[in-house]
Amino acid sequence: MASNGNGSLANGASTRGKPIKCKAAVAWGPSEPLTMEEVEVAPPGRLENELQSKFPRILGHEAAGVVESVGEGVEDLAAGDHVVPIFNGECGACAYCESDKTNLCGTYRVNPFKSTMASDGGTRFSVVDGTGERRPVYHFLNTSTFAEYTVLDAACAVKVHPKAPLDKMCLLSCGISTGVGAAWNTANINTGSTVAVFGLGAVGLAVAEGARLRGAARIIGIDINSEKFTKGKEMGVTDFIDSKACDKPVHEVIREMTDGGVDCSFECTGINDVLREAFLSTHDGWGLTVILGIHATPKMMPLHPMELFDGRRITGCVFGDFKGKSQLPDLVDKFMNGRLNLNFDGFITHNMSFSDINKAFQLLEEGKSLRSVLHF
Amino acid sequence: MASNGNGSLANGASTRGKPIKCKAAVAWGPSEPLTMEEVEVAPPGRLENELQSKFPRILGHEAAGVVESVGEGVEDLAAGDHVVPIFNGECGACAYCESDKTNLCGTYRVNPFKSTMASDGGTRFSVVDGTGERRPVYHFLNTSTFAEYTVLDAACAVKVHPKAPLDKMCLLSCGISTGVGAAWNTANINTGSTVAVFGLGAVGLAVAEGARLRGAARIIGIDINSEKFTKGKEMGVTDFIDSKACDKPVHEVIREMTDGGVDCSFECTGINDVLREAFLSTHDGWGLTVILGIHATPKMMPLHPMELFDGRRITGCVFGDFKGKSQLPDLVDKFMNGRLNLNFDGFITHNMSFSDINKAFQLLEEGKSLRSVLHF
Repeated sequence: MASNGNGSLANGASTRGKPIKCKAAVAWGPSEPLTMEEVEVAPPGRLENELQSKFPRILGHEAAGVVESVGEGVEDLAAGDHVVPIFNGECGACAYCESDKTNLCGTYRVNPFKSTMASDGGTRFSVVDGTGERRPVYHFLNTSTFAEYTVLDAACAVKVHPKAPLDKMCLLSCGISTGVGAAWNTANINTGSTVAVFGLGAVGLAVAEGARLRGAARIIGIDINSEKFTKGKEMGVTDFIDSKACDKPVHEVIREMTDGGVDCSFECTGINDVLREAFLSTHDGWGLTVILGIHATPKMMPLHPMELFDGRRITGCVFGDFKGKSQLPDLVDKFMNGRLNLNFDGFITHNMSFSDINKAFQLLEEGKSLRSVLHF
Repeated sequence: MASNGNGSLANGASTRGKPIKCKAAVAWGPSEPLTMEEVEVAPPGRLENELQSKFPRILGHEAAGVVESVGEGVEDLAAGDHVVPIFNGECGACAYCESDKTNLCGTYRVNPFKSTMASDGGTRFSVVDGTGERRPVYHFLNTSTFAEYTVLDAACAVKVHPKAPLDKMCLLSCGISTGVGAAWNTANINTGSTVAVFGLGAVGLAVAEGARLRGAARIIGIDINSEKFTKGKEMGVTDFIDSKACDKPVHEVIREMTDGGVDCSFECTGINDVLREAFLSTHDGWGLTVILGIHATPKMMPLHPMELFDGRRITGCVFGDFKGKSQLPDLVDKFMNGRLNLNFDGFITHNMSFSDINKAFQLLEEGKSLRSVLHF
């Protein structure tokens, strides 16, 4: 059963059935800086005990790598395969995976609180802590990619074109897939569509890139930082609104610009008031708002039920509505064959050493980077 | 231009170009009982002045009748045609009517505050009030059907099969079209679908009827009045939940009954807490909640943005997403040809004289009727 097996990512040599010692960035607690540790990574296998504590933990969910070895029963992956980890797995066998209406797998769906392997509830990492004791290190989002070697359930590893450049492919683990897929799969942007993207971080820019590739007529980017427009233009943003500089609600500005509203808006900020502006910026009758931002506050949706009677729709989107294992390989093949002009490079603002991981986080928090690719 | 013309409904004789005196139930103010008045109905034509006041007014939006005469430029209707008035008109020429994504017409959409003809901003009714002065009487929902004769914009009159029984067809003006259409068009219920209907009034029962006609596997009706189940069974309701008798939230009961939730739920009560139960009663990954109830309070939707990430969707629905003039004639033809077993009679609990209109309202308010058909 593919869903019970798993593969570990690395760079080639066969270590099947043996533990591997390697470097990993370990989170020892919430808000603590990551520290580089030598961890032991167990080979693919099973554990029975469900573990409760969540730290120490190896975070990270965007990466690309090479399969080191595969566990028993894994048939679609082999040592040497180039793979992209996906936090939103695809077992291929559950009612969800068999439905064409969702990409949420029943077993491997997103759960940031889950800290063990979905297949058996165990961990594959351990580390010697300050007291000299070897402790288990917990997993994160089915992936735990802040390590030289990790172990994934096979449902969470997508085999891609063997020559695909891993330093670009890592962006398919989350940001690009989410944004591009939201434009392609969730919103079905077509030639001539009008689009508004609220928040021009990596996901928002990936939405713009996806809309550009589909031939959208107009892609309006909205941000409080007008410097984002420079990068946005590369990704297809045609118009920029600095929401801080508006003397009326942004949705009114957009409706005036677009003869009544855009066909689709994308909420990429996680801010409740922005959600309402995004909703109202679409055209009545057929407008669709796609929520991509993480709304961390308990605030409920600032929409009245009767507002849905104007024909505006709103939906959430996880991982761009891509079924990762079924659909990403084809996307990569098209890119490799020159049939998909996806601007991976535009998203990579920094390349740095894995050991500079905390510096990379700082750049992200300061809005100075889109994606920093860490190299081992 | 059809959208500038209009037809008046009556029973045959030609009165083209002349005013008609007839009986109408006039609303003189909010909450005042309707009084039977002899009103004068102007022939189809134009007025230029926009009128502000809203009373006296002729209410009503569900009816069927025969065209008495048509105004200049009306080509798709003629005296003698059997027609069903629709409050959600279809001009056929605006960007909305030309879109296959909405049934909201740009000109003739629902607006309960509008009190004049959409085509020219005028009224077609007048009455002599207590002081002996002739005053204009205002329109309602593009239809004003509480009168022997009314004047409609042609966009709001659907020509149906000439032998279709008018005492059944009147139900297509709102209740049946809204419920059946919500099941067919909005939710696309199919063979094997599971459905939950919250609120078993006429619209809720019409949803059940629509779901039954599409072969839904299970139709769960939820109401606080368990007597509704008797009538519900006629319309296809297979399971009944008395929400007052539940010792846990209704959505939990429904999820247990249906292995995780129904495919579609329909909110037909206008109650905010019920909306949340309806939303949570659908299956994650693909569940759809359709709002049909009129939510009259200012309470916002009791849903958190992140809850949309579980793949549940929610949408509003006006007039069952039917484009009235394009789609209802075919529905009626199928009914007349015996190819559509729609249970019109099940919705008609009372037949009474037009003069008993206030009694009919009382039965509706007391929950003792579904629809009372008033006869002239």
